[in-house]
Amino acid sequence: MALTPARTMPGVLELLPLDQIAFQRMLDTIRRNYERFGFLPIETPVIEHSEVLLTKTGGETERQVYFVQSTGALNAADKEPGGVPELALRFDLTVPLARYVAEHEHDLSFPFRRYQMQRVYRGERAQRGRFREFYQCDIDVIGKDSLSVRYDAEIPAVIYSVFRELNIGAFTIQLNNRKLMRGYFENLGVADAEQQMLVLREVDKLDKRGPDYVRDTLMGEAFGLSADATAKILDFVQVRSTSVADAFAKLDALGSGSETFEQGRAELKEVLALIRDYGVPEAFFALNLSIARGLDYYTGTVYETTLNDHPGIGSICSGGRYENLAGQYTKSHLPGVGISIGLTRLYWQLRDAGLVSTAQSTVDVLVTQMDAAQLPAYLAVANELRAAGIATEVVLEGGKLGKQFKYADRAGIRFVIVLGEDEIAKGVVTVKDLRREDQFEVTRADLVKTLRVELAQAEIGR
Amino acid sequence: MALTPARTMPGVLELLPLDQIAFQRMLDTIRRNYERFGFLPIETPVIEHSEVLLTKTGGETERQVYFVQSTGALNAADKEPGGVPELALRFDLTVPLARYVAEHEHDLSFPFRRYQMQRVYRGERAQRGRFREFYQCDIDVIGKDSLSVRYDAEIPAVIYSVFRELNIGAFTIQLNNRKLMRGYFENLGVADAEQQMLVLREVDKLDKRGPDYVRDTLMGEAFGLSADATAKILDFVQVRSTSVADAFAKLDALGSGSETFEQGRAELKEVLALIRDYGVPEAFFALNLSIARGLDYYTGTVYETTLNDHPGIGSICSGGRYENLAGQYTKSHLPGVGISIGLTRLYWQLRDAGLVSTAQSTVDVLVTQMDAAQLPAYLAVANELRAAGIATEVVLEGGKLGKQFKYADRAGIRFVIVLGEDEIAKGVVTVKDLRREDQFEVTRADLVKTLRVELAQAEIGR
Repeated sequence: MALTPARTMPGVLELLPLDQIAFQRMLDTIRRNYERFGFLPIETPVIEHSEVLLTKTGGETERQVYFVQSTGALNAADKEPGGVPELALRFDLTVPLARYVAEHEHDLSFPFRRYQMQRVYRGERAQRGRFREFYQCDIDVIGKDSLSVRYDAEIPAVIYSVFRELNIGAFTIQLNNRKLMRGYFENLGVADAEQQMLVLREVDKLDKRGPDYVRDTLMGEAFGLSADATAKILDFVQVRSTSVADAFAKLDALGSGSETFEQGRAELKEVLALIRDYGVPEAFFALNLSIARGLDYYTGTVYETTLNDHPGIGSICSGGRYENLAGQYTKSHLPGVGISIGLTRLYWQLRDAGLVSTAQSTVDVLVTQMDAAQLPAYLAVANELRAAGIATEVVLEGGKLGKQFKYADRAGIRFVIVLGEDEIAKGVVTVKDLRREDQFEVTRADLVKTLRVELAQAEIGR
Repeated sequence: MALTPARTMPGVLELLPLDQIAFQRMLDTIRRNYERFGFLPIETPVIEHSEVLLTKTGGETERQVYFVQSTGALNAADKEPGGVPELALRFDLTVPLARYVAEHEHDLSFPFRRYQMQRVYRGERAQRGRFREFYQCDIDVIGKDSLSVRYDAEIPAVIYSVFRELNIGAFTIQLNNRKLMRGYFENLGVADAEQQMLVLREVDKLDKRGPDYVRDTLMGEAFGLSADATAKILDFVQVRSTSVADAFAKLDALGSGSETFEQGRAELKEVLALIRDYGVPEAFFALNLSIARGLDYYTGTVYETTLNDHPGIGSICSGGRYENLAGQYTKSHLPGVGISIGLTRLYWQLRDAGLVSTAQSTVDVLVTQMDAAQLPAYLAVANELRAAGIATEVVLEGGKLGKQFKYADRAGIRFVIVLGEDEIAKGVVTVKDLRREDQFEVTRADLVKTLRVELAQAEIGR
């Protein structure tokens, strides 16, 4: 029989076990922090009705959707060429959240703090660093009718807690406010909402294309802005703060403006001050008036987070405040604020930059086998360890002891237990610490206690 | 604008947050136990190449596959009616495991113990209790060239550990061996492998159709077995054991048989004795010679697990030993043994039977708001609690205190903290225990310690 090539489709990240453990530890850290701040878990189906997924979006997003058909539906579709299949894979977690909140509105308590950590799917062209399947780890707070701007300060507090614990180096949560931006542009004569969007889109290219390109575009035919207005816009988007006091001073230095502008400024000040009250050190958040984010979705605070020593990685966590989550599914007004970590890409980039490494195994201890007749004794030791919560593997098929040690080493297992005739007679076990290249003897009675201490120390040192 | 109905497709289980927490706790328990026995995590993409998924299977399974096409591929497919799309959603975790092991063979250590807990997809007809998307929680041990039958005893030890900790009542892990069955049938003149399969398929209907139906079929035209052979088969499949000693006696009472038969008997005895050495109490596992499982896949030990007080739920965890995992992708010989828990269906059945209930919230504490001006003080308390690992929500938009209590109660949050002017002046906080309908005052210095004790007690009482 001819063999079928064993391969995954391009654009997915499939990991070897020890890397999967490292990835899982990141997922666990994120989840633990989301829960610590009172966010509740939900999971939604990967497959949704196409009409649900595609109500609002179009163009770019629609072309990237994966449609789904069972064999029966596939045959039916042949008869109806050009028809869009009924089902599709979700391309983000925001549209499913909107559908979820609209569907279960009467069973939820508002403000509804939810977290969701699942994979999403995009039919991207295959390209290094572009994934067709990737994890998003989202939090959102959804209000009914209204939602205080105070929640806009809670989101960065959660993000600070997550990234501090992920231990991937210094980072800065950068904030802006879409009202402030829009108001500022109105002041400069860019009053039309559509035109503002287009200016914001150009401003969004500042990092990629540079100020000269953006200046030329804004003063060119398409926009026709004056040199003065263009300069003011470029000054504006270059504002960064070094502390809350500095942020306040820089916001005040922008002069007075329209009602929208003043509202944006007041919101930013309240949010910045409150983030500090949340205990986030001032080195970890800053004003960055160049951040515009999505063009028609966010309406107030917007966030991006970057690693100070790895700016090339770009934003590792982005989001913002939106006016109405689920207008396409319900008449209820549901304002919200949220943020998303694209963990698959982040993990891949961090690994590339040497900031995460292959984990030690989840297996703490390997019980070796010297003599098959003693298997019940080995299993009894393993039982004790497992009952104490120590993950333990037993060698069930013997072989040379050296080979068993090599297996443990290769598998990333730190502690190896040897239980030979001598040890059994003396009521002790020999523990080899493969990391420290050390070994010690311990009585059976003290084994669990001793290993617990060693493992707790290893956990701290990690 | 017309509203789009907010609805999920039929055949999926979407949960409200407190139910999701209960479900997540089950997933966590399973994972913890899998890891405790030294199994390593992997995750594979939901989408696989159709040729990878469909090599081995056909008929029933193929009709249930969901195919996947991005918008571009969809248009191309219109031109080629009848062609099977290149991509599809996995319908189990075994085929992806086979592909994974074949693809990464040289990077894995054997015996390879892996666990995998992900969702799978089947285009089932919509029906109560049938899911189109459901979690499978699988463990398998894969050997290179060979794999000792001792591993067949480890699998039930893991399963015992999982279900004991899931705390869903008494259960029995039931074992049989396909070699024993086949050998027994050979003895009775059913020597042809194909014919044996067909007999096993009939035997598999014993529970659903009853012994009369099976007897009539086996003695009828299609099989033409003698009354004696049929009676012996029906006697055989009704064997159940009450202890390891009883199992040995009943296995011995079957008389002598072919080499295959004797091999099966020896394997079963070794496995049963070793399960006991693993510390599994004898009340939790038994011989059940009616279990046949999948027809062409399993070759040795087979398992099913049932809840003693809820036989109607059927097998909650099934699997067995197979000869060669990945013959369609690699020339390597990879025997294995494994088991799968279909958690979505199990959760749904347990909830239906009242064996799992809606969980308490993951949120331990709600810090209420009496006065917005004191928000920094509330946030400082929350910060302390979170730093101690206590999940804490802060009311950011005030309102009547009674309403805040009601919110906590509805949200399943047990402890509520009140911090008014009096409390702040006295350096204390008031803690309301909504479950015990009790409240107490505690100094700020003792707050974390006190709540930790309360929460640890609540954890024990759960």
